[in-house]
Amino acid sequence: MKVTVVKNVLDANNRIAEENRKLFDEHKIFVINLMSSPGAGKTSLVERTITALRDKYRIAVIEGDIQDTFDADRIARLDIPVVQINTGGACHIDGNMIRETFPSFDLGRIDLLIVENVGNLVCPAEFKVGENIKVMLLSTPEGADKPAKYPLMFQESAALLINKMDLMPYVDFDLEKARRDALALNKNLNIFEVSCKTESGLGNWMNWVTKQIDAFKK
Amino acid sequence: MKVTVVKNVLDANNRIAEENRKLFDEHKIFVINLMSSPGAGKTSLVERTITALRDKYRIAVIEGDIQDTFDADRIARLDIPVVQINTGGACHIDGNMIRETFPSFDLGRIDLLIVENVGNLVCPAEFKVGENIKVMLLSTPEGADKPAKYPLMFQESAALLINKMDLMPYVDFDLEKARRDALALNKNLNIFEVSCKTESGLGNWMNWVTKQIDAFKK
Repeated sequence: MKVTVVKNVLDANNRIAEENRKLFDEHKIFVINLMSSPGAGKTSLVERTITALRDKYRIAVIEGDIQDTFDADRIARLDIPVVQINTGGACHIDGNMIRETFPSFDLGRIDLLIVENVGNLVCPAEFKVGENIKVMLLSTPEGADKPAKYPLMFQESAALLINKMDLMPYVDFDLEKARRDALALNKNLNIFEVSCKTESGLGNWMNWVTKQIDAFKK
Repeated sequence: MKVTVVKNVLDANNRIAEENRKLFDEHKIFVINLMSSPGAGKTSLVERTITALRDKYRIAVIEGDIQDTFDADRIARLDIPVVQINTGGACHIDGNMIRETFPSFDLGRIDLLIVENVGNLVCPAEFKVGENIKVMLLSTPEGADKPAKYPLMFQESAALLINKMDLMPYVDFDLEKARRDALALNKNLNIFEVSCKTESGLGNWMNWVTKQIDAFKK
């Protein structure tokens, strides 16, 4: 009974996500659905990515949070179009929330739209929003058991950024186990070891994401 | 419309949680609902608490995870009764899942039941399970913006353990801001600065939780 209800909710969301996707295709907008635990570094990655790629692409951002506009304020400081979704009690962004933001954007002037999801390793992986790719962050203090405990997000993502590599000397993070378990769930997963703080490893991420966007746009 | 659905789900859950609570009261079982982000240190805190308090109380544990039994295996090694709930897709434990574990326990032989919830700062705070108190962990690498971004969990909790204090020299964690914002949401919140790794600060937590259990049982 319960499973049926969840399935209907997901089916209904998939239909809206497909409509969003159609609209993004018409405008040639590449959309990244960015997911992670709370505090893993999503907003820092968005800031770094904007700084690195803003000369090449017209970038816009949707920030998802239960409440407040702190993350959107950080992005707005970079002079980038940004809309904050406040989900209220909801622990994820869904397709309809994204649709509600459309009147706030000039869709004809966006090449790359980054959707920063609510910090949560579970439900964001279940609700499509119309993205081209899902990208996830795992930070080293969270531990290497996360692929085994939250498999869907690793299965659904095209790229995994292992963030806070600068903390490796101070935490018990088994990097090889994390890589191995993540690849066992998704052999096509592109893994990048980065520190958004020191900027180490971010060049590889920028090169990879640039390739994805360029392949989509031509 | 959507809000109504959520409200009904929560009402239905509250009724089951109250039934659980009645049963726990009959058996004089003090129940802690333990919540945090993924990887903040819940299982480590459960292990430390068992080791410190097992001579004083008969302890049992319920582990909640999307899948797998890694955390339950860790607790079982301490020779403590433990049941693993696998929530499937669900990002939180609810009252009915707890009820389903009852046949696996000898309720007449438990003084303290610790329920380790799914790693998630959102929905676990919304679904009562029949607990006496909610307790949450916030780890320093997650950042001091978490009270502002996930207020309900801070409002609902009786105690907040700020964990991974050993990482303070290596992360940008504004301890005073975290404390201030958490107390602004909940002036009765008992805050403990701890490291489950080095064991620093854990004595204060053990003293406090002992007082709560003893006050309940007499």
